[in-house]
Amino acid sequence: MSLPLSGVTIVDFTRILSGPFATMILADLGATVIKIERPGSGDGARTLPPLKDGKSGYFAAVNRGKRSLALDFDIDTDRALLDRIIARADVLVENFRPGVMDRRNLGWELLHARHPELVYASVTGFGQTGPDAKRAAYDVIVQARSGLMDRTGTQEVPRRAGSSFGDLSGGMFLAQGILAALYDRARTGLGRRVDVSMLDAQLALMEQAVPRAAMGATPPPHPSRHPAIAPCEAIQASDGSFVLAAGTEAQFERLCLVLDLPIAGDARFADNAARLANARLLKRLIEAVTLDHTRSHWLPRMTAAGVPCAPIQAMDQVMKDPQLGARNMIVDVLDRYGRASFKAAGNPIKMSGMEDPPARPAAPELDGNRADILRWLEKG
Amino acid sequence: MSLPLSGVTIVDFTRILSGPFATMILADLGATVIKIERPGSGDGARTLPPLKDGKSGYFAAVNRGKRSLALDFDIDTDRALLDRIIARADVLVENFRPGVMDRRNLGWELLHARHPELVYASVTGFGQTGPDAKRAAYDVIVQARSGLMDRTGTQEVPRRAGSSFGDLSGGMFLAQGILAALYDRARTGLGRRVDVSMLDAQLALMEQAVPRAAMGATPPPHPSRHPAIAPCEAIQASDGSFVLAAGTEAQFERLCLVLDLPIAGDARFADNAARLANARLLKRLIEAVTLDHTRSHWLPRMTAAGVPCAPIQAMDQVMKDPQLGARNMIVDVLDRYGRASFKAAGNPIKMSGMEDPPARPAAPELDGNRADILRWLEKG
Repeated sequence: MSLPLSGVTIVDFTRILSGPFATMILADLGATVIKIERPGSGDGARTLPPLKDGKSGYFAAVNRGKRSLALDFDIDTDRALLDRIIARADVLVENFRPGVMDRRNLGWELLHARHPELVYASVTGFGQTGPDAKRAAYDVIVQARSGLMDRTGTQEVPRRAGSSFGDLSGGMFLAQGILAALYDRARTGLGRRVDVSMLDAQLALMEQAVPRAAMGATPPPHPSRHPAIAPCEAIQASDGSFVLAAGTEAQFERLCLVLDLPIAGDARFADNAARLANARLLKRLIEAVTLDHTRSHWLPRMTAAGVPCAPIQAMDQVMKDPQLGARNMIVDVLDRYGRASFKAAGNPIKMSGMEDPPARPAAPELDGNRADILRWLEKG
Repeated sequence: MSLPLSGVTIVDFTRILSGPFATMILADLGATVIKIERPGSGDGARTLPPLKDGKSGYFAAVNRGKRSLALDFDIDTDRALLDRIIARADVLVENFRPGVMDRRNLGWELLHARHPELVYASVTGFGQTGPDAKRAAYDVIVQARSGLMDRTGTQEVPRRAGSSFGDLSGGMFLAQGILAALYDRARTGLGRRVDVSMLDAQLALMEQAVPRAAMGATPPPHPSRHPAIAPCEAIQASDGSFVLAAGTEAQFERLCLVLDLPIAGDARFADNAARLANARLLKRLIEAVTLDHTRSHWLPRMTAAGVPCAPIQAMDQVMKDPQLGARNMIVDVLDRYGRASFKAAGNPIKMSGMEDPPARPAAPELDGNRADILRWLEKG
């Protein structure tokens, strides 16, 4: 069985993270991604840390398995080459600010008229429309403006969620939009324009915060407790914290058994709504017991009893997590000589008939695939 | 033009958040989603806060536009009805723990043999394989185990990122897997099994933390600074914090101009790598200026100069954000009588030829679409 996106060719103008993350997902699913880069320096992510032997692990992780062609749009022969690639591509992806592609005669209207079957996808900070469409954004801008930082930290010490969700969320929704447009095109023969904003995407992941805010019912942020489930938070043991979550009555009863907590039948903890209303008291009662022993005492006991729980792992522990290992979620990214070079997260989409190799092909050298791409174009 | 997933029918066994979020995305793109619920209580999210008139805003937001049918698998007539729906469906989605669907004779092997064209998708805490496959998970479990809490808070005060990324990430990758499988099926006629783990999905969003950890180069978590870009963090003004990000040399030069910072030519800030190495000093120099004025002084000036910046918005400000308003990102969810009932985040995937209505159809009443679904089955 071939990969689900085998035969799909993507011409990719994106740089740094949001767009490249989307095309990484599509490459992992089997698409051929041709990365068009600026001659000389290429994608700015090529120099972002962590670096090893002058190569960026950041770039390698997000651009694994893509091909690179360096082109200068102002040079006629380069532009002619680009036009030939676009004519053969199924999808064009870009993350320039609105207007930049139009000024290069690479805008949606023009290309859609020429190539009605081309899917044209853009991810930008704020989208193609609206008063702030032309402003630049970075992850932290989107996290701040979407309410995520307010929900993560405190007003005194604002905190960014610990990964670049502003970029990644935009990339995820972009990948979904491209996939939906490809499915649609398989039936209609027509490409669509997909327009994703990082700010919109981040808001779309704010979940219950939106209905709550509209009802004037935004609770103050809590460091670790889920806003709708209790107990579901970080709990202190004698040697540090771990998390537990009892989201069903059965799980809560089992938790009470493990802790020998005599609160069965107590109206203050009779159901999730009551436990939420008394969450601080409940946490204190739980910690009155858990503080007597270490995490390594509690975690196996709770696990054995079927109470969802976990250590708060630092990244070095995450890298050795047996479940992630069994799922092939820490993969090697090869270098150009086929040697393991960097580690990266694997593909979380496991699919029947789709290989899930533990080593992923290298990210391209700048302009490293020119000869191959020319040969592919010649084949017509 | 019809919606990209028009004509696609999804039979949806999922509850709470990860699975329902995936099918919400697909419903927004035009799929018909038939939610199969337990008679009596239905999806547990129906009672999760925020509540209004006894209805859950959480449930309404995530289940907008779906249809509901309550079925008891142990009753023969109900089971026969379910079998007829599955025979007509394009996609089956479930988020039970591994083994549950098999025990109900609804497992992948059996259904794939009967309906080779059916896409069969599962999202679970830890996936269908590996030592922890059968364990239950909640958002906070996944955030803790994946390293996200460690990267968001401190070892002393562990913090959950302020939205349920553990669930939502699983839902996003599940949606992508389903879409890729549908595209593939349009060519091959064969359905695939999609297997997504919330833990895998969360790890896939840890970005550079994975290559860094493998290199032994995990920096201590910082409340708001991006680990690879400086300046890119929360900055104090006289009345509170805002964020700014200068990710290019041009943006950094403009920032220095706005602040009248005389550090052009200073080797300590000559490029991003130097600024990262001196990020604390740089922040102090910036705040020595910004602390003299309010946020409403600095934000318009930086915006005018083209320096990416934003207020750290609380949710009530987010709800009134003009850019999000212009993008139709705060939508009404209607009730069964067609009245605006709850607010929710809109669809961040904007697509040509795809309507983006400011009001979204209601989430279903439990078993509220039985008659419609029976009629659709009769039509054959």
